[in-house]
Amino acid sequence: MILRLGQIELFVTDLDKSKEFYVDVLGFIEVERTKESLYLRAIDEFDRYTLILTKKPKAALGSFGLRVSSPEYLEVLKKKHEGLGIKTEYCLESPHPGKGPTLKVEEPNGFPVEFYHSMEQIQVGNPNGGVDALPMRHSHLFKGIPPICIDHVNLRVPNVDKALEYWTEIGFSISEFVRGDDGKFAAWTRAKTSTHDVALVKHQKASLHHIAYIVDGVSGVVRTADLLADAGYRDSIEYGPGRHGVTNAFFLYVRDPDGHRVEIYSGDYKRDTDLPPIGWTKEEYDEKGRLWWGPTVPERFFETTPLNSAWLNSVTHK
Amino acid sequence: MILRLGQIELFVTDLDKSKEFYVDVLGFIEVERTKESLYLRAIDEFDRYTLILTKKPKAALGSFGLRVSSPEYLEVLKKKHEGLGIKTEYCLESPHPGKGPTLKVEEPNGFPVEFYHSMEQIQVGNPNGGVDALPMRHSHLFKGIPPICIDHVNLRVPNVDKALEYWTEIGFSISEFVRGDDGKFAAWTRAKTSTHDVALVKHQKASLHHIAYIVDGVSGVVRTADLLADAGYRDSIEYGPGRHGVTNAFFLYVRDPDGHRVEIYSGDYKRDTDLPPIGWTKEEYDEKGRLWWGPTVPERFFETTPLNSAWLNSVTHK
Amino acid sequence: MILRLGQIELFVTDLDKSKEFYVDVLGFIEVERTKESLYLRAIDEFDRYTLILTKKPKAALGSFGLRVSSPEYLEVLKKKHEGLGIKTEYCLESPHPGKGPTLKVEEPNGFPVEFYHSMEQIQVGNPNGGVDALPMRHSHLFKGIPPICIDHVNLRVPNVDKALEYWTEIGFSISEFVRGDDGKFAAWTRAKTSTHDVALVKHQKASLHHIAYIVDGVSGVVRTADLLADAGYRDSIEYGPGRHGVTNAFFLYVRDPDGHRVEIYSGDYKRDTDLPPIGWTKEEYDEKGRLWWGPTVPERFFETTPLNSAWLNSVTHK
Amino acid sequence: MILRLGQIELFVTDLDKSKEFYVDVLGFIEVERTKESLYLRAIDEFDRYTLILTKKPKAALGSFGLRVSSPEYLEVLKKKHEGLGIKTEYCLESPHPGKGPTLKVEEPNGFPVEFYHSMEQIQVGNPNGGVDALPMRHSHLFKGIPPICIDHVNLRVPNVDKALEYWTEIGFSISEFVRGDDGKFAAWTRAKTSTHDVALVKHQKASLHHIAYIVDGVSGVVRTADLLADAGYRDSIEYGPGRHGVTNAFFLYVRDPDGHRVEIYSGDYKRDTDLPPIGWTKEEYDEKGRLWWGPTVPERFFETTPLNSAWLNSVTHK
Repeated sequence: MILRLGQIELFVTDLDKSKEFYVDVLGFIEVERTKESLYLRAIDEFDRYTLILTKKPKAALGSFGLRVSSPEYLEVLKKKHEGLGIKTEYCLESPHPGKGPTLKVEEPNGFPVEFYHSMEQIQVGNPNGGVDALPMRHSHLFKGIPPICIDHVNLRVPNVDKALEYWTEIGFSISEFVRGDDGKFAAWTRAKTSTHDVALVKHQKASLHHIAYIVDGVSGVVRTADLLADAGYRDSIEYGPGRHGVTNAFFLYVRDPDGHRVEIYSGDYKRDTDLPPIGWTKEEYDEKGRLWWGPTVPERFFETTPLNSAWLNSVTHK
Repeated sequence: MILRLGQIELFVTDLDKSKEFYVDVLGFIEVERTKESLYLRAIDEFDRYTLILTKKPKAALGSFGLRVSSPEYLEVLKKKHEGLGIKTEYCLESPHPGKGPTLKVEEPNGFPVEFYHSMEQIQVGNPNGGVDALPMRHSHLFKGIPPICIDHVNLRVPNVDKALEYWTEIGFSISEFVRGDDGKFAAWTRAKTSTHDVALVKHQKASLHHIAYIVDGVSGVVRTADLLADAGYRDSIEYGPGRHGVTNAFFLYVRDPDGHRVEIYSGDYKRDTDLPPIGWTKEEYDEKGRLWWGPTVPERFFETTPLNSAWLNSVTHK
Repeated sequence: MILRLGQIELFVTDLDKSKEFYVDVLGFIEVERTKESLYLRAIDEFDRYTLILTKKPKAALGSFGLRVSSPEYLEVLKKKHEGLGIKTEYCLESPHPGKGPTLKVEEPNGFPVEFYHSMEQIQVGNPNGGVDALPMRHSHLFKGIPPICIDHVNLRVPNVDKALEYWTEIGFSISEFVRGDDGKFAAWTRAKTSTHDVALVKHQKASLHHIAYIVDGVSGVVRTADLLADAGYRDSIEYGPGRHGVTNAFFLYVRDPDGHRVEIYSGDYKRDTDLPPIGWTKEEYDEKGRLWWGPTVPERFFETTPLNSAWLNSVTHK
Repeated sequence: MILRLGQIELFVTDLDKSKEFYVDVLGFIEVERTKESLYLRAIDEFDRYTLILTKKPKAALGSFGLRVSSPEYLEVLKKKHEGLGIKTEYCLESPHPGKGPTLKVEEPNGFPVEFYHSMEQIQVGNPNGGVDALPMRHSHLFKGIPPICIDHVNLRVPNVDKALEYWTEIGFSISEFVRGDDGKFAAWTRAKTSTHDVALVKHQKASLHHIAYIVDGVSGVVRTADLLADAGYRDSIEYGPGRHGVTNAFFLYVRDPDGHRVEIYSGDYKRDTDLPPIGWTKEEYDEKGRLWWGPTVPERFFETTPLNSAWLNSVTHK
């Protein structure tokens, strides 16, 4: 089965600037840097990295990766996609360090999606076979307001119901949704028990709205805003803090040096994935779902990020 | 599949005193009170209740309930238990309000375990088909330091490896464990992606050590201690606050009026259940696993709670 | 000497609505209610009350009170005001419970100011001569997000430099100020060591902009916004949360049912009052002083509250 | 008048070890290091430094400094001390950078006390005459859990009432005290409006028990314990966290590499210094004053630090 969103690759135009923003200011852990890519991790994570920033001429969503419960399940997914008429690419070797085979697909709306099982785990052990310290117990080495873990991607799609056909087919369930006049306006879907791994919101063009990392509590969110302003990155604070009615997230949306939007948030809840979704009317969503309380949404919050234009074959033919 | 620990029933000797402790002081939400039982919920929960306090002549662990993903899975579990030679009882109707059929078993160490799928959900909807507010968005009605959600039970068993045979057989995986001289000293097992639903620690007699609820952040834990002392319940604070090395929990152990131990904590982490467990040596556990830092463990922390002595047939023959 | 701002009286049009807002939702402690007034206190305060809400046909600033270090100092202030040509009224008996003599003056801009020394203190003692508990150690009785203590008033005046002549004459010192083209644009003045008891900001008309209470940390500010939205008071959230550059306050401005603006904040700093003030240029203030970071200021944030139009003689002739 | 405790000098035996503890782990700001001394500051402070660690063969309390409101007041204090028959030393030039004249005295119990007015302030201004940022708004440069500001010293004296004669004579007032069988057992005295600048507790020998710095909220205290354990300094955590009944402090006592005890705390309250002190009986203190709640006090908590044995003349004759 699919377990969760486990990895995101963003294309960025300047690795140094990205490093300054994500590592030096926000406090992501720098795991490795190659000529092409910067590999980052949040502090509670056991995966060696969850965010890949890859240098490209143009900023875009490189891909996002969904972790599955076994190597065999990649085969199951391959067949399922073939059955859906979706082209797949099975890559025995990932170009990224410590990563096992991946199944690459282009989701019906064109999103570059990757399924994988094997990912290098960080060492918590000491040489004698026991444990040194859990990953989060290195606070003396942290700086900034390091996020705790990766959470979700928020995608914009022309037709939410149609997009849901794919996502529910591969096993995602809906936690909350918004009824529009003309089918659903939005749906939060997930493999794990939180409110979302993949959110789908209506928009004229398939594109990425934001990626999201969780920080420690509401004070972690506020201190991230302080931190950015203190470090001279006030303009990177795009929107918030405020409270979403849908999902209950206490949010802050920030923009990285390439304009990628990152939601820094806290306050999600857990719910069994078999339970019926919570449905908001569009009126309720507009009145209190989008914003339980918070500042007015600025215009630039509606801008989105384009997708990797060379997803399939991008690795094998490079 | 089994999803998570979803419910605990404790036998208590005085419902009024229990109500004062759990509801009036700690801030659990009182859902319903019958002649026999008090039904309580934490603030982020959608299940109508997760803690049942039932009046009995003697304090004991009544049972704990594990939620499964479908009604059919109760059948699967029934057969699996029969295959293991474990007696089961299928109860079409639970004595508790809003609860569907349950499969009752006596786990090999004698623990009263219940499997169930259907549980009444709280209403988040308004009469016109939409949403009023998510459960946690009623903070104006809360008092005390209400916990966020149920998390786990900590069981004491004479032989951890043997107990693990059962728990892994029904699908639990180990997140962390401690190697003893003579098999495992302890193991934290779970169905969900947190560190534990059911912890197993070596002890001469099968018994309950504590139940656990999560509160909001480290300040929630500290404010719970303040709250108890302010309300005249200082003696109920048994141990903590401190930080466990294993599981990373920032903990406070409190005792309810019947002596049931409740861990009020924060700081758990998430990890995919297919990943290999983290193994501590007994030396590491004694040195930093039990206590990453914190006060010395008081003697009474090793006392445990007996089990429901009339589990099977307790409902049908009452 | 003058010690600090110690009390504020607001005229409100409906005591029940005020009670619901301040007591039932925000969590102020209701101390006493007479036919005319509601007396409230924050949780760390030893003064029996610090906020008086008095029923009147029109909402206005009733007065604000400054506590002095001795009864004799009221005499000193009386003479000082006479020397400044400011009319005073010495009231041997305050109409408010537990309050000693007051010296009432109309500050040069018309603000109703009261000086007092004696104010009833809450009982922390037990009958046998010792201590029960400090005031903040009754958390089991609190609800909402009760503020910790009163802090300041923010006044609007046509000429800040001129207003400062009075306030520095009676012993206030400036913590921070903003240089305008035409004299100071704003000045934060205080008797105590925090950044302000009385802030003065340029405006066409002498009026009250807001009163301010401190809450516990940035999470206290955020939880106040949650609380108001949860209780159906979202429209009462006027502006914030955000961080002021000047004074470092992490702020939330809310409006009570009469439109009185209350700043709920955290993050002030302490500084000796003899040290030279910190001066911002108007450009710096506009760029980062008003808002280190935070949402755009809404138009209604510039509205202000009129003053008690019957201050002197209001008590003696009633 | 005397304003507050403003500075502490501790004698330490190894500056590198001290630097690692205070700067690299805890997050104090390193201001300057000379051959003899390390100068440190907390993040909300405008004084260039408040903690001086000076290399000496033996660990001791070097001195503590009380800031006064004007240079002239040093003269007043000189005469007052002469009137009390206490030897003074007026040092026109302090050996410490950025510090003006000091009046050194040996307090009746032998404590090395210094009065001073002039202390270099950190630059908050930009070259064009305005403001860059307040000191606490450099969070991108902070690490660890940096304290917010200096608060108090806790002294042990053979006779509290006798010690109080001196401290009240020079203008300190008592916030809280404990009645013993034989005069006061303890008294918390202050110049500022918090609960203490100088605490006095009965002990056979005049000595220093601890110095104290404030951190941001209860979570700051807990995160300091986490930080120390994470950095391998678990043994430096001596006692806590817990809540004092007296003063309401949420405390953690840690030991620096020389054994100096530092209280890292949060939760003090403000109260006008003219108000009558709060008196606890010894029974109340033992029952709930020392510990509103918290772990049992370990034996080593009663150890104390000796005093600078060469206080007067230590500067002029060096």
